[in-house]
Amino acid sequence: MQLGLVGLGRMGGNMRERLRAAGHEVVGYDHNPEISDVASLAELAEKLQSPRAVWVMVPAGVTDATIDELAGVLGEGDIIIDGGNSRFSDDAPRAERLNEQGIGYIDVGVSGGVWGRQNGYALMVGGAQEHVERLMPIFESLKPEGEFGFVHAGPVGAGHYAKMVHNGIEYGLMHAYAEGYELLAASELVTNVPGVFKSWREGTVVRSWLLDLLDRALDEDPELAELSGYTEDTGEGRWTVDEAVRLAVPLNVITASLFARFASRQDDSPAMKAVAALRQQFGGHAVHKR
Amino acid sequence: MQLGLVGLGRMGGNMRERLRAAGHEVVGYDHNPEISDVASLAELAEKLQSPRAVWVMVPAGVTDATIDELAGVLGEGDIIIDGGNSRFSDDAPRAERLNEQGIGYIDVGVSGGVWGRQNGYALMVGGAQEHVERLMPIFESLKPEGEFGFVHAGPVGAGHYAKMVHNGIEYGLMHAYAEGYELLAASELVTNVPGVFKSWREGTVVRSWLLDLLDRALDEDPELAELSGYTEDTGEGRWTVDEAVRLAVPLNVITASLFARFASRQDDSPAMKAVAALRQQFGGHAVHKR
Amino acid sequence: MQLGLVGLGRMGGNMRERLRAAGHEVVGYDHNPEISDVASLAELAEKLQSPRAVWVMVPAGVTDATIDELAGVLGEGDIIIDGGNSRFSDDAPRAERLNEQGIGYIDVGVSGGVWGRQNGYALMVGGAQEHVERLMPIFESLKPEGEFGFVHAGPVGAGHYAKMVHNGIEYGLMHAYAEGYELLAASELVTNVPGVFKSWREGTVVRSWLLDLLDRALDEDPELAELSGYTEDTGEGRWTVDEAVRLAVPLNVITASLFARFASRQDDSPAMKAVAALRQQFGGHAVHKR
Amino acid sequence: MQLGLVGLGRMGGNMRERLRAAGHEVVGYDHNPEISDVASLAELAEKLQSPRAVWVMVPAGVTDATIDELAGVLGEGDIIIDGGNSRFSDDAPRAERLNEQGIGYIDVGVSGGVWGRQNGYALMVGGAQEHVERLMPIFESLKPEGEFGFVHAGPVGAGHYAKMVHNGIEYGLMHAYAEGYELLAASELVTNVPGVFKSWREGTVVRSWLLDLLDRALDEDPELAELSGYTEDTGEGRWTVDEAVRLAVPLNVITASLFARFASRQDDSPAMKAVAALRQQFGGHAVHKR
Repeated sequence: MQLGLVGLGRMGGNMRERLRAAGHEVVGYDHNPEISDVASLAELAEKLQSPRAVWVMVPAGVTDATIDELAGVLGEGDIIIDGGNSRFSDDAPRAERLNEQGIGYIDVGVSGGVWGRQNGYALMVGGAQEHVERLMPIFESLKPEGEFGFVHAGPVGAGHYAKMVHNGIEYGLMHAYAEGYELLAASELVTNVPGVFKSWREGTVVRSWLLDLLDRALDEDPELAELSGYTEDTGEGRWTVDEAVRLAVPLNVITASLFARFASRQDDSPAMKAVAALRQQFGGHAVHKR
Repeated sequence: MQLGLVGLGRMGGNMRERLRAAGHEVVGYDHNPEISDVASLAELAEKLQSPRAVWVMVPAGVTDATIDELAGVLGEGDIIIDGGNSRFSDDAPRAERLNEQGIGYIDVGVSGGVWGRQNGYALMVGGAQEHVERLMPIFESLKPEGEFGFVHAGPVGAGHYAKMVHNGIEYGLMHAYAEGYELLAASELVTNVPGVFKSWREGTVVRSWLLDLLDRALDEDPELAELSGYTEDTGEGRWTVDEAVRLAVPLNVITASLFARFASRQDDSPAMKAVAALRQQFGGHAVHKR
Repeated sequence: MQLGLVGLGRMGGNMRERLRAAGHEVVGYDHNPEISDVASLAELAEKLQSPRAVWVMVPAGVTDATIDELAGVLGEGDIIIDGGNSRFSDDAPRAERLNEQGIGYIDVGVSGGVWGRQNGYALMVGGAQEHVERLMPIFESLKPEGEFGFVHAGPVGAGHYAKMVHNGIEYGLMHAYAEGYELLAASELVTNVPGVFKSWREGTVVRSWLLDLLDRALDEDPELAELSGYTEDTGEGRWTVDEAVRLAVPLNVITASLFARFASRQDDSPAMKAVAALRQQFGGHAVHKR
Repeated sequence: MQLGLVGLGRMGGNMRERLRAAGHEVVGYDHNPEISDVASLAELAEKLQSPRAVWVMVPAGVTDATIDELAGVLGEGDIIIDGGNSRFSDDAPRAERLNEQGIGYIDVGVSGGVWGRQNGYALMVGGAQEHVERLMPIFESLKPEGEFGFVHAGPVGAGHYAKMVHNGIEYGLMHAYAEGYELLAASELVTNVPGVFKSWREGTVVRSWLLDLLDRALDEDPELAELSGYTEDTGEGRWTVDEAVRLAVPLNVITASLFARFASRQDDSPAMKAVAALRQQFGGHAVHKR
């Protein structure tokens, strides 16, 4: 089927290729003219037959502006799909705004990273049943082969919500492996730490795709000596904790994983300075001066 | 090759079958005569040609007694393998005791649970190179097919150490999924929680064997309505935290997962009663009476 | 000086008495006519000479409505003080709205609970220097005697912010004592748990007002047998964690304390049900059925 | 009464002075002859009339050796008191060894640090009732004035146990304040962070001796600019977590406080390097190279 695709960066560009390889007619727009199929969103709208479907795959910061501009060139019966990393709470207001113009809205959480073009993208979809059905040919081509990798999770917002929780879980999983790595590396007894991780890839309870990747990383750098622990976090981890607080759900593991990222970016911990100050006051404990 | 196998419960019994299917001659002993091949450890020793290898697969509480009894019927050049869930710190003293009699010792952390007979058992091995080499035919038959599932992790103790960390990681992984499950179940937005987990099995960053199992569980009971959250813990989780404390390694995620199991077994939290008492004292806050 | 006081509940009523005892002329309004000095906010405004100062001490849910109504009967040069448990982020928008009418705004975080009437109320104040100065006679009478118990923490919002962090710290302090209580109560060795807490009230590093209160509670009920651990949380704890997430500050202790309150209100943990389900799947572990 | 006192460092030296000021006859021994009253433990024993009481106040690492040596010069009916930071589990074996010679044993957890000489030392005592009674004149003089600061917590070991939990709580309290400090310092809104802490010293729920000390520290260095966050931990915090693991008590707050100290001593977190490695693998995320 026909699809407009706005945003042809690492994700969008790969998705265009995967969709074209599956036989779809994709009209792509990017602000970079070298990779764009059309010169403007208006031209993109013209090239598509009504009712149109346009997939937006742009950085979270410009999603609303992009959708608003797109709404100006689309019309009744068209559908906009947001496949970016939007916060789920932005979806309902957007859908409402578009609905006033008769434009449908679907939110899609997309997982798969740089591996998606080859393996397919896992899709978590929120929106009305009729809109989702219209887009199924696209979803079928983007998702991995086999029976998994796609879910219609609920109404508008549910797709980004599911993706948010996916990423929260991801934080926790990564940190569990990371803590195990640190403990093994600290042990005097285990002499072959990378070998232990490699061995776990089959037959164990902890086998997973992330474990496979950690093995790859240890193959390249057995002591991770080239890397710094300084680690960014993306919005999904923070939103997960915000939701935990709002819904009164105790998320000790995911929150600890997020906080560890915060701490990784500190040169020195202000909290620990306060602890050091207290120890100096009551115990005359020696403290480290800067 | 020939192998003595002591302990023919769920794990040992399946291992005997897997080894025999691979062509090994296994002489099994169990205190239950109905499943035992021999009437005593002495008879087991007689049936094996020197130098013998005897694999002990008994509950952790009786491992030392079993090994001591076994040492009484074995001799110079024989090897004892402990494949049970021993604490790694018990391995070196055992090896030393056996060494005085000329008996070798290997410790093996075994993962795979009830699935191991069919898929193979992941093996983490600690011990001297010469002892490990002698047992390789056995290890090759027990481990999963393919290149993974076996590691010689280091000297005596390293096998159980690696298994301990494996289980610590397992605690953290399970809890990360569990927290994601709780948040999704609490959300007003996601209407198809089991569908979300099922979809994640392909193409996502969080795909894993544990996720496959959680999907299975949700297929059987979509709201986990039949289960209680009361959850036991085994020694490995506790030993992991003890090691973290000993080695000054911050294991926030794994420890939180262990503590959540402790809390799951409490009818009411004594700590929270103290919090409630404090709130009543300073704020006149209403408290719940028992 | 003259002060209007809106809301004469447990907090507001006690504050009226403390202020009158200090010689101030307080005109109180409450929707309960039995305790109100005037019949309406309009009458309250009439009874005060311009420029007026009116302190609002109502539940957080009705603060904005109360302030808006009050703004309708006040005028240029008057000041509204919000002493309730507002979220700090509500203060700046309020101040802006009032500023358009020439009305000043001060936010005050008030600590002290039911003990405040006698001991004084600790006050954390946010607002413009000139507004704070005008109210100093009131602040001086409300605060405890001595050099502490009052701070002008910063511009509008800073008072509620400081109070929010105060309560976040309070959560952590309470939980630290509570954990110590639980461990002592679990110990086979310590036979006099209440005696241990009582002894700590002098000479120790952990002495505090909260410890005094815990000792009181243990005097009344040495095993806290009459209490349930079910514990509410107020907004400040949640806002503290939200701020930690927004500012990328790792607050492991305060967040764990908040999450423990969430967990205290669950009959069974959905997360632990998921853990139990996983254990059943991979290990054939016995699980507890509901 | 007469007391032998072994170890005249910062703690022991101050205690000797406090006891002498109270009229007791203290015979002190230290390996440093300049501060020692006697030349040897044998001379110390000679100078005391039977039945003797000797208080040992030496670093944990040499306590057992000191007690064993002391036992060689004492006899039936004498009592040894260990006031050092011993692990509670060392007490019972010691008491048993001494009991075979007819020597009694008391363990005392001592709190108060450098402030104890002036304010008194809080004492948590474990041992037999008859032994404790004999020492009461000493305890009365060491403890703070007033009704608090002393507890006979239980049999041998209970004193050190109570002190261990005291220190565990102390870790949690310190970290709660420290986190609040970090959040306030990160806020754009609060312009007077030291003033906020100072104000909390009266009238608030969070007032405590530790808060007084933090105020002192902020008076000296308002931004804690001179300090490093690098912070040691002493045995008690680790033993507390070990006990939590042994007794299945969830101590999230105290453990997080201990782990934060571990992390404060790391230049870079090995766990976070593993997280960074994973992010690089699956997302092509930019990572920081060392």
